[in-house]
Amino acid sequence: MLTSGEQPSVEQLTLSALREKIRTNAYTGSTSGLAPGYLQANLVMLPADWANDFLLFCQKNPVACPLLGVTEPGSPFLAELGTDIDISRDVPEYQVFYDGRFETSVSDLSEHWRDDLVIFVLGCSFSFEEALMQSGLTVRNIEQGRNVSMYDTQIACQPAGRFSGNMVVSMRPFTPKDAIRAIQITSRYPKAHGAPVHFGFPDAIGISDIHSPDYGEAVDIQEGEVPVFWACGVTPQNVIRQSKPPVCITHAPGKMLITDLLNNALSVL
Amino acid sequence: MLTSGEQPSVEQLTLSALREKIRTNAYTGSTSGLAPGYLQANLVMLPADWANDFLLFCQKNPVACPLLGVTEPGSPFLAELGTDIDISRDVPEYQVFYDGRFETSVSDLSEHWRDDLVIFVLGCSFSFEEALMQSGLTVRNIEQGRNVSMYDTQIACQPAGRFSGNMVVSMRPFTPKDAIRAIQITSRYPKAHGAPVHFGFPDAIGISDIHSPDYGEAVDIQEGEVPVFWACGVTPQNVIRQSKPPVCITHAPGKMLITDLLNNALSVL
Repeated sequence: MLTSGEQPSVEQLTLSALREKIRTNAYTGSTSGLAPGYLQANLVMLPADWANDFLLFCQKNPVACPLLGVTEPGSPFLAELGTDIDISRDVPEYQVFYDGRFETSVSDLSEHWRDDLVIFVLGCSFSFEEALMQSGLTVRNIEQGRNVSMYDTQIACQPAGRFSGNMVVSMRPFTPKDAIRAIQITSRYPKAHGAPVHFGFPDAIGISDIHSPDYGEAVDIQEGEVPVFWACGVTPQNVIRQSKPPVCITHAPGKMLITDLLNNALSVL
Repeated sequence: MLTSGEQPSVEQLTLSALREKIRTNAYTGSTSGLAPGYLQANLVMLPADWANDFLLFCQKNPVACPLLGVTEPGSPFLAELGTDIDISRDVPEYQVFYDGRFETSVSDLSEHWRDDLVIFVLGCSFSFEEALMQSGLTVRNIEQGRNVSMYDTQIACQPAGRFSGNMVVSMRPFTPKDAIRAIQITSRYPKAHGAPVHFGFPDAIGISDIHSPDYGEAVDIQEGEVPVFWACGVTPQNVIRQSKPPVCITHAPGKMLITDLLNNALSVL
């Protein structure tokens, strides 16, 4: 498994310089906060004979799996994301799953690439986090320098073919006033999970301990704040664990594909 | 004071027939649920020498006092609301205040009309309640056939000239999922109080007992629901009690001016 080690400072790099660092594996860290303004994406790669099922799964679960694009089998390119993007190289870290089980993390996919792989590019909450901050809201996980808190839920996704499972959600705490504003803002980003799916009562969606997230890190919830829950791009990984495709490759959590598109290009209204 | 007495059935009347019943004082009841689709409005009438202060108050407090129109002094007409509307006659019941104190309720303003009265026409939550129901949400006060629950708060309005006071809010309970949808829908109606100002913690805005509203009636809050609070058109009456203009006339709560405009004409986005 890849060890993260000391990472070079990349905050000030241009998008192309940052991409070069990632492509050459000189940077294998989190992409949170990098390349401000540019759209980052979740990835799911599956063999072609599993792709149609997953395409249908995305269609049926657009809040958890907002589909931005799908590659041709065997191609790591998708021109609408950017002309100089090789999806098989331009992510700091990938996770490889065999039969639904995590196998390894790699920063270079060459050993694992297959000519029948189809890549699904999915919207990611980083886009709306930026929009929230631009509106003056404080995103706690960013403020505290932590990974966002994520939880398994009992919200069932709509099954499609061989894919089924429950939704994973991310949580950010807000005062009610700020939560109302956050609902308005994130509603403008349906391709980045859109509006929250729940707030206030964790146990109502199957979360027994808000202070023990299933993924990411716990963040502080202050007096007078409510936890607000959004559908999360980790949902596909949860579904893949259950559905056990022979091979599946995803980005590593927090280490996304940075595209040439602007976050604001995703917003509606 | 006017006694409500037995009211004729008016649910099936056309808008013009309903208006005729109201104008002739044959109907003096609530306008809730009447003339579906048509915009209903709150009213505040003040002497001309108090009008500029109130105009500024509305400008500074657009969520509580969303201004739709202002008449010329002494005129009860405002063409943009409808050509056959006489605001001094077309409301089922008016309330008259002297020096900030409630004096009397009347269904006919002729005895109280003054040539220096300026009428402020303000958006009303009836517009967004209709939009909520059209989206399949249940509005509890309508479901239970009760007046909406309204509360004095400690949310201070922005003072303007001689006008100051705290915001009055209306409350509708929803599950978190429906509350999120309600926030989206009401955000589209900034001229009908727009998005909620708060949810969840009544005491955070100065409401000590959610089951004892200061105006209107209590409604049931079910397990798993949160109270959601919107700025309310009763705010001006609260402000007038404190600011004590020599005379002020308003509609009676729940008995609004029905205009020729469509609710949907108020929506943005």
